[in-house]
Amino acid sequence: MVQVNLINFTPNAELVIAAAARLSSSSARTRELLEKLSPERVDGLLCQLISSGHLSTFEHVSFTFSIEGISRVTSHQLVRHRLASYTQQSQRYVPLKELHYITPPAISTRSELEAEFQRAVKAAHQLYCDMLEKGITAEDARYVLPSAIETQLVMTMNARELMHACSLRLCDRAQWEILQLFEKIKVEVEKVAPRIGAELRPKCYRLGYCDERESCGLFPTREEVTGS
Amino acid sequence: MVQVNLINFTPNAELVIAAAARLSSSSARTRELLEKLSPERVDGLLCQLISSGHLSTFEHVSFTFSIEGISRVTSHQLVRHRLASYTQQSQRYVPLKELHYITPPAISTRSELEAEFQRAVKAAHQLYCDMLEKGITAEDARYVLPSAIETQLVMTMNARELMHACSLRLCDRAQWEILQLFEKIKVEVEKVAPRIGAELRPKCYRLGYCDERESCGLFPTREEVTGS
Amino acid sequence: MVQVNLINFTPNAELVIAAAARLSSSSARTRELLEKLSPERVDGLLCQLISSGHLSTFEHVSFTFSIEGISRVTSHQLVRHRLASYTQQSQRYVPLKELHYITPPAISTRSELEAEFQRAVKAAHQLYCDMLEKGITAEDARYVLPSAIETQLVMTMNARELMHACSLRLCDRAQWEILQLFEKIKVEVEKVAPRIGAELRPKCYRLGYCDERESCGLFPTREEVTGS
Amino acid sequence: MVQVNLINFTPNAELVIAAAARLSSSSARTRELLEKLSPERVDGLLCQLISSGHLSTFEHVSFTFSIEGISRVTSHQLVRHRLASYTQQSQRYVPLKELHYITPPAISTRSELEAEFQRAVKAAHQLYCDMLEKGITAEDARYVLPSAIETQLVMTMNARELMHACSLRLCDRAQWEILQLFEKIKVEVEKVAPRIGAELRPKCYRLGYCDERESCGLFPTREEVTGS
Repeated sequence: MVQVNLINFTPNAELVIAAAARLSSSSARTRELLEKLSPERVDGLLCQLISSGHLSTFEHVSFTFSIEGISRVTSHQLVRHRLASYTQQSQRYVPLKELHYITPPAISTRSELEAEFQRAVKAAHQLYCDMLEKGITAEDARYVLPSAIETQLVMTMNARELMHACSLRLCDRAQWEILQLFEKIKVEVEKVAPRIGAELRPKCYRLGYCDERESCGLFPTREEVTGS
Repeated sequence: MVQVNLINFTPNAELVIAAAARLSSSSARTRELLEKLSPERVDGLLCQLISSGHLSTFEHVSFTFSIEGISRVTSHQLVRHRLASYTQQSQRYVPLKELHYITPPAISTRSELEAEFQRAVKAAHQLYCDMLEKGITAEDARYVLPSAIETQLVMTMNARELMHACSLRLCDRAQWEILQLFEKIKVEVEKVAPRIGAELRPKCYRLGYCDERESCGLFPTREEVTGS
Repeated sequence: MVQVNLINFTPNAELVIAAAARLSSSSARTRELLEKLSPERVDGLLCQLISSGHLSTFEHVSFTFSIEGISRVTSHQLVRHRLASYTQQSQRYVPLKELHYITPPAISTRSELEAEFQRAVKAAHQLYCDMLEKGITAEDARYVLPSAIETQLVMTMNARELMHACSLRLCDRAQWEILQLFEKIKVEVEKVAPRIGAELRPKCYRLGYCDERESCGLFPTREEVTGS
Repeated sequence: MVQVNLINFTPNAELVIAAAARLSSSSARTRELLEKLSPERVDGLLCQLISSGHLSTFEHVSFTFSIEGISRVTSHQLVRHRLASYTQQSQRYVPLKELHYITPPAISTRSELEAEFQRAVKAAHQLYCDMLEKGITAEDARYVLPSAIETQLVMTMNARELMHACSLRLCDRAQWEILQLFEKIKVEVEKVAPRIGAELRPKCYRLGYCDERESCGLFPTREEVTGS
């Protein structure tokens, strides 16, 4: 079961974003801006930046998460977000002695399937352990391991990329596990940067419509809204 | 078994790199340079750029490969190279009806292990098919599939990143499967851009020493060469 | 006056994009797809990808331009697009013996201002030449050169980033010179990849509304369209 | 005159890097590692990572600088480092009423040249102000401004890219102004992350030789060290 912990982040994230944004269009000096901007002004500036899609200043702050208990299915999807930094526990160098794995809810809610799923995963892990004992390296033995196997990693993303990743991964079309992961990421960000956390939402909120062929119902489609 | 086909690339790759490099330090115009540079001059310029590590002009050319028959182990490693573009066959949307998988040589050369490995992979795939029939979606059923399962993808990399990726993945420390993959990539590049292809080599060639803690023997270690 | 020449590009751009997109959701092999997809099917696939914002396959093709006759004002803006490759003529190593510079239309259309502008630019260039003669290096002498001075560069961008850059730089809010530059880039792309060229448009076309605070009139604002 | 202030950074930078590195090759959990790693162990791990060139974990920490008093010459060079985030004071929206500019030492040390340089810069700025008064916009009037004009920006870089940028910009071949800038950046980093700060050095330190055609003398050339 996925666990997300925010282990590091740039402090004063929202103030720094607002100060950078002000710098670009004023003759003030950055340090003055950092001292003078009131919380209300910061909030107003962030609002404006977001609504007009001027998101580059959101790159100045970043968040580092410890992510545990996700399947290799999901870690493979996750690392496709290229504007981020990942350190993943290596299956090449770390033998997986204990078995931890993820069962999709669609399977765990059907007891006869769950039993078979569990049996298969355990059998694969048993063979993995046997191969290790017989001198096969961890990097080769892992070929038998199912994608359900849990992994852990450290991920750093800046706020702009977090907003982008969430726009896709909190969408109804995302698979349940990565959606769950980003819901937990959102909760962690909200604790330390509530204004940014609030913006971690499916893309339809920013667009004002759903740009997929079919809407989940949250927003009408692009065609319904714009007429084209 | 991995198959690599170069399906697209920027033509005249080496001429374009040389012309761009000349542009940066001459008052000539790019189109003149493209017309006037002789093959010998191109070769000389590329040599110089490489030996002094001025590699940015190598970004102007790129290569697109169709990659088939690699395991999910290797596709997961591959997509960690972030300065490249990937389109991978989706296990969410494409049910894997036929079973194709990779057996590591360390396993396939030991017949008793291979038999068990094969049995386990086939059993997992059988359960996968059963789950599909019982209404589980492909995206959920795949949790049971082993990492050995083959995947295919299209990858585009520019020449600079190719050189970087090869510097790591053609190193003796890389796992056999990704090393094989990049050996085939090198062969494909050599056919259309021999000077670039020749530079797709482990990092020790460029460094003049091995910077890992232990050398495979190809080059002496940094300490042996530089004394520190 | 800006001149843009497409000096290199990945051939069959639109076919490759469509084939990659098909690969991701079918069990076909890439090479089969490259052979079988009809021009109409390619067109339909590109349409679909664009309307749903699934743009990653557009990264598989890239375009290399020779850009001449832009001011340093514009080259400084241009290189802020980070997902691209640039080789710029160096003011450190190349002495600018001939004077070429850009006069903004707002100045060139007012003859008394234009005369003063011209005089100032020429005086600065004269001092630059004097300093070179007196032994100042080009890299230091250039501090006196105005931003109007022309530069040339080679730029490579993939189709996805080109679409993104155009969404901003063909917007009415962009400055006239960089807008002109991207209009010429669009013309060049249209010659070899008409479907992609047609998509090089201000962001309002994709959004269906203007997301800036005030619209230029081409599209109504987000609020007018979505009600929020 | 360049001023650099570190206005934000990820705290506990070195501990986080070391913990991420340990995660990748152990079965420990990230949070345990963050609690247990002693300062000596952190130091040892960082040393090892650097000497073997395994730098990806250095991406997990970043530094945000306020940079003031650099010329447009140097800001144009700086933003060429693409793996970083910049917010620059806009010459489009901010009229430069006060004149601040950089004089290269090679010019300021020759009084007759300095006088002419100053006169030229002041004349250009005067014309700029006149044009503003006559209704020319700041974005167009700036074409007459010399490259010596000061700008300010906010820059965020992660530690890996900082090490890379310094490897080039602290090299003797870099121009004096950007070299000065990165020397000040190094001083700022050293205050909060001394181990990382110490690694902000020209590339020859990491290589063990100079890979340029001619060495400044700090290290022997590649050929002298490796024999090829």
